[in-house]
Amino acid sequence: MPKLWNETIEAHRRAVRDATLDTTATLVAERGIASVTMSLIAEKTGIGRATLYKYFPDVEAILSAWHERQIAGHLQQLTEARDKVADPSERLETVLRAYALIHQRRVRHHQNQPHGSELAALLHPDEHVARAQQHLRDMFRDLLVDAARQGDIRGDVTPEELASYCLHALTAASTLPSEAAAHRLVAVTLDGLRSAH
Amino acid sequence: MPKLWNETIEAHRRAVRDATLDTTATLVAERGIASVTMSLIAEKTGIGRATLYKYFPDVEAILSAWHERQIAGHLQQLTEARDKVADPSERLETVLRAYALIHQRRVRHHQNQPHGSELAALLHPDEHVARAQQHLRDMFRDLLVDAARQGDIRGDVTPEELASYCLHALTAASTLPSEAAAHRLVAVTLDGLRSAH
Repeated sequence: MPKLWNETIEAHRRAVRDATLDTTATLVAERGIASVTMSLIAEKTGIGRATLYKYFPDVEAILSAWHERQIAGHLQQLTEARDKVADPSERLETVLRAYALIHQRRVRHHQNQPHGSELAALLHPDEHVARAQQHLRDMFRDLLVDAARQGDIRGDVTPEELASYCLHALTAASTLPSEAAAHRLVAVTLDGLRSAH
Repeated sequence: MPKLWNETIEAHRRAVRDATLDTTATLVAERGIASVTMSLIAEKTGIGRATLYKYFPDVEAILSAWHERQIAGHLQQLTEARDKVADPSERLETVLRAYALIHQRRVRHHQNQPHGSELAALLHPDEHVARAQQHLRDMFRDLLVDAARQGDIRGDVTPEELASYCLHALTAASTLPSEAAAHRLVAVTLDGLRSAH
């Protein structure tokens, strides 16, 4: 049964890859990049050093893959949140809230580690990140266009510009200490989208 | 007259340092970090290689110093903008506008260079940047507290949280193609601060 066998191998590869990414991100956040070697990653992941090198050439490549997986996961979360709600205004608010909470939780998770901010600084915007960000901007713009049809969104600024405003304003959640504060940020950001002056 | 002599030396040092920073940022934005050596920087600045090494150990150190000088310059610009206006609400709006335009112009300036985005990616948040950002947050918070006394600012969110919202929302200006768009972003951000819902 070659097909089943291939599936098993594929599942195994993905499991090894995922475990490597998780281990590396945790090690870097705990100890700092300067203290994390390929040998240490192999040991903590529970695989051989030679096996690790079959997957990744160096620590930077693992962090880059980890970053890419994180972003893909966030896009997935936002897409799922969006598709659960039918009303355009509620849908916009739901996605804004999900996006703010991703930022709020991400930072809280890292900041408890001694080298958490170093991990964030190591993640450079590359091609994958640029593509994911474009995807996000498109998603937000489409949500805004739909909500604008209901008359809930100001008409003096284009949906593209408002999408950029939302995406940047909500990253402020990464500086906020609580989910309640993230919800307040969403309310403030939504008021900017609505305008009344 | 040793004092005058010292002042002359000090002025000369600062001029060499400033020229080195400008040359390096321009070279990195034009050619990419991989093509910029200490020798090239010395040559283009018009100083000897040995002299350059008296100021900086490597290219990264020069970029870091350039980044620090940029941020100090922006803080200076914002402080001057703030001190020109007496009315708290106008003062807040003036500083928000100045901050948005700094972001809008900065990006336009870099994006015209082939490696402009690489330059931005090389600038890691370090201690100096963290201190400057705290300074910015404090400035915005104080402006918001003063404007709130006039009743122009929503009362359901703390000035600290609103300061973080402003600082993040306005960085969206770096994605905007025109100053007019940056002004619209300021209007949207201000509406979020005022609340009407």
